[in-house]
Amino acid sequence: MREKSGLQTVSIYEPIQEGLARVEHGLKNVPTHKFPFLSQLLGHVFETSGKRIRPAVTLLAGGFNPHDGKKSEIMATAVELLHIATLIHDDMVDDSDVRHGRSTISSLWGRKVAVLVGDYIFAASATYVCETENIRVIRRFSENIMELSTGELQEMAEAYNCDLTMEQYLDRIYNKTASLLTTAGEAGAVLSGAPEDTVRVLREYGYNLGMAFQIVDDILDFESTQEEVGKPVGNDLSLGILTLPAILALERQPKNNPIAGLFQHPHEEGTLARAVEMIQNSSVIEESYAVAEKYCRTALDALTGLDPNPSRSSLEELVGYVLERRS
Amino acid sequence: MREKSGLQTVSIYEPIQEGLARVEHGLKNVPTHKFPFLSQLLGHVFETSGKRIRPAVTLLAGGFNPHDGKKSEIMATAVELLHIATLIHDDMVDDSDVRHGRSTISSLWGRKVAVLVGDYIFAASATYVCETENIRVIRRFSENIMELSTGELQEMAEAYNCDLTMEQYLDRIYNKTASLLTTAGEAGAVLSGAPEDTVRVLREYGYNLGMAFQIVDDILDFESTQEEVGKPVGNDLSLGILTLPAILALERQPKNNPIAGLFQHPHEEGTLARAVEMIQNSSVIEESYAVAEKYCRTALDALTGLDPNPSRSSLEELVGYVLERRS
Repeated sequence: MREKSGLQTVSIYEPIQEGLARVEHGLKNVPTHKFPFLSQLLGHVFETSGKRIRPAVTLLAGGFNPHDGKKSEIMATAVELLHIATLIHDDMVDDSDVRHGRSTISSLWGRKVAVLVGDYIFAASATYVCETENIRVIRRFSENIMELSTGELQEMAEAYNCDLTMEQYLDRIYNKTASLLTTAGEAGAVLSGAPEDTVRVLREYGYNLGMAFQIVDDILDFESTQEEVGKPVGNDLSLGILTLPAILALERQPKNNPIAGLFQHPHEEGTLARAVEMIQNSSVIEESYAVAEKYCRTALDALTGLDPNPSRSSLEELVGYVLERRS
Repeated sequence: MREKSGLQTVSIYEPIQEGLARVEHGLKNVPTHKFPFLSQLLGHVFETSGKRIRPAVTLLAGGFNPHDGKKSEIMATAVELLHIATLIHDDMVDDSDVRHGRSTISSLWGRKVAVLVGDYIFAASATYVCETENIRVIRRFSENIMELSTGELQEMAEAYNCDLTMEQYLDRIYNKTASLLTTAGEAGAVLSGAPEDTVRVLREYGYNLGMAFQIVDDILDFESTQEEVGKPVGNDLSLGILTLPAILALERQPKNNPIAGLFQHPHEEGTLARAVEMIQNSSVIEESYAVAEKYCRTALDALTGLDPNPSRSSLEELVGYVLERRS
């Protein structure tokens, strides 16, 4: 998912500032076995600091049961490492040269290095998870890696297919994005020693936040200008990837739809512009936001099962942030 | 490492036949989440059965303490899955079209699919390991994935470098090959509930077997014909990879060495042939075998610390097999 700048991290991250600082330290100290080339590569990877939404959810999810925060912080570091490893392989698979204004590993050192550095960071994330010594969390994490790669394979297998169902789309965005936020919520709660109903709430929260986040991300692909997100408008469609607005547009107009025209002649001039324009000028953007809002509401509803405290407030604010990304 | 056919599996694998059959079943039943494309890909991956040396060592290492074999079999499956995932990424990184006479994933479906299927099988291996519910083994396995990718990165970073030291070479082949056999020996013993001195013996055995195996593999690269191993003679050198025979040849003749000539002009006709011929006609091949034999002896010496039984006999035979690969 792409992450626009402007997150009011100060208030949202207030209850977990110290934990996040230790996560940042952990990321910058992934072992490199005294191997200078690896140090150079990891230096590049960890030079910029992202939004750290996944570690934040992990740490906030631990805010409902008093506990020593060490294992939650290790878990939060692992979750972010897994996210970073995924991005490196995604950029390689998508031939992306730039992410968040910085050159990707694959554009600087080539695809082969990108594959191997990604593998290394995957492995590092798994090693961190082991330090939690919690089998349930370790198992969930491994399953999550399978979900993430399944999501990418689905995106590839489903490309240029106009018959994609809503169910297939939702399954794919769960695998690609919501799965890791589900893990963040669940693992944060489990490692805090919270009771099972609290764990369930935070898993549900993570799932719904993740689904909403990816849907908004997919909408922004049609709305944002290249300057805002660093990608051309309609980038997904141009790669043959159907997302929610396009699926709804195909449902409304099954015949002579410009999206079908684009998928039949992807390199013909004007086909992409026509498909994007059709979507921008129809109600499907609003309808897609309504779907995202529904997931946000479910996330907020889940939180009502927890006692009010600063962590809960932050998790609520995070839901608001997802919708605020709307341009 | 490349594996020549001719392994007398019948006698070596006798004590673990049933376990190996269950490993084979496990490999063919990696979950595919009802996703037909993934089923097709995994079907291709698991269609051929390899030598299964790593699962064999895992199961045999469990033969010194009576135990329910279920966890050892799960571990043996995980170890082979990790090996297979590594091969898929290696083939992609090396642009290999064929392995053991079969088309590689990257040659059939492209590099992107190869990366994602490799990721998926990595994750599947980690999920299997979790089923052992043994934190020590799970942690060792994660570290092993880091070692494997470090080995590949080292091979890439060290390419076309004539100043490579023996120490760097040994470190690289540990990471690339011996690390996983070390894990196989250690984990097999740990999961059988064997005492710590038995675990130490089997870890040492795995390490030394793995080092010997890779050294012989590296020698065969200079000895075998293309028909025998499916790769041209001197394939490693042609990719700028220094292995033991070449390192010894550079030590003997530091000036005007044809290997340095090859690395300076890798595409010039005749440079590869001159370097290969120099190695074939010198004593370095015999000296390299002597190094491999030393590792084999250490592996056999380690085994004397265990009570004689069919598992120990098989582990001893496996050492013999490594040297028999000599053409």
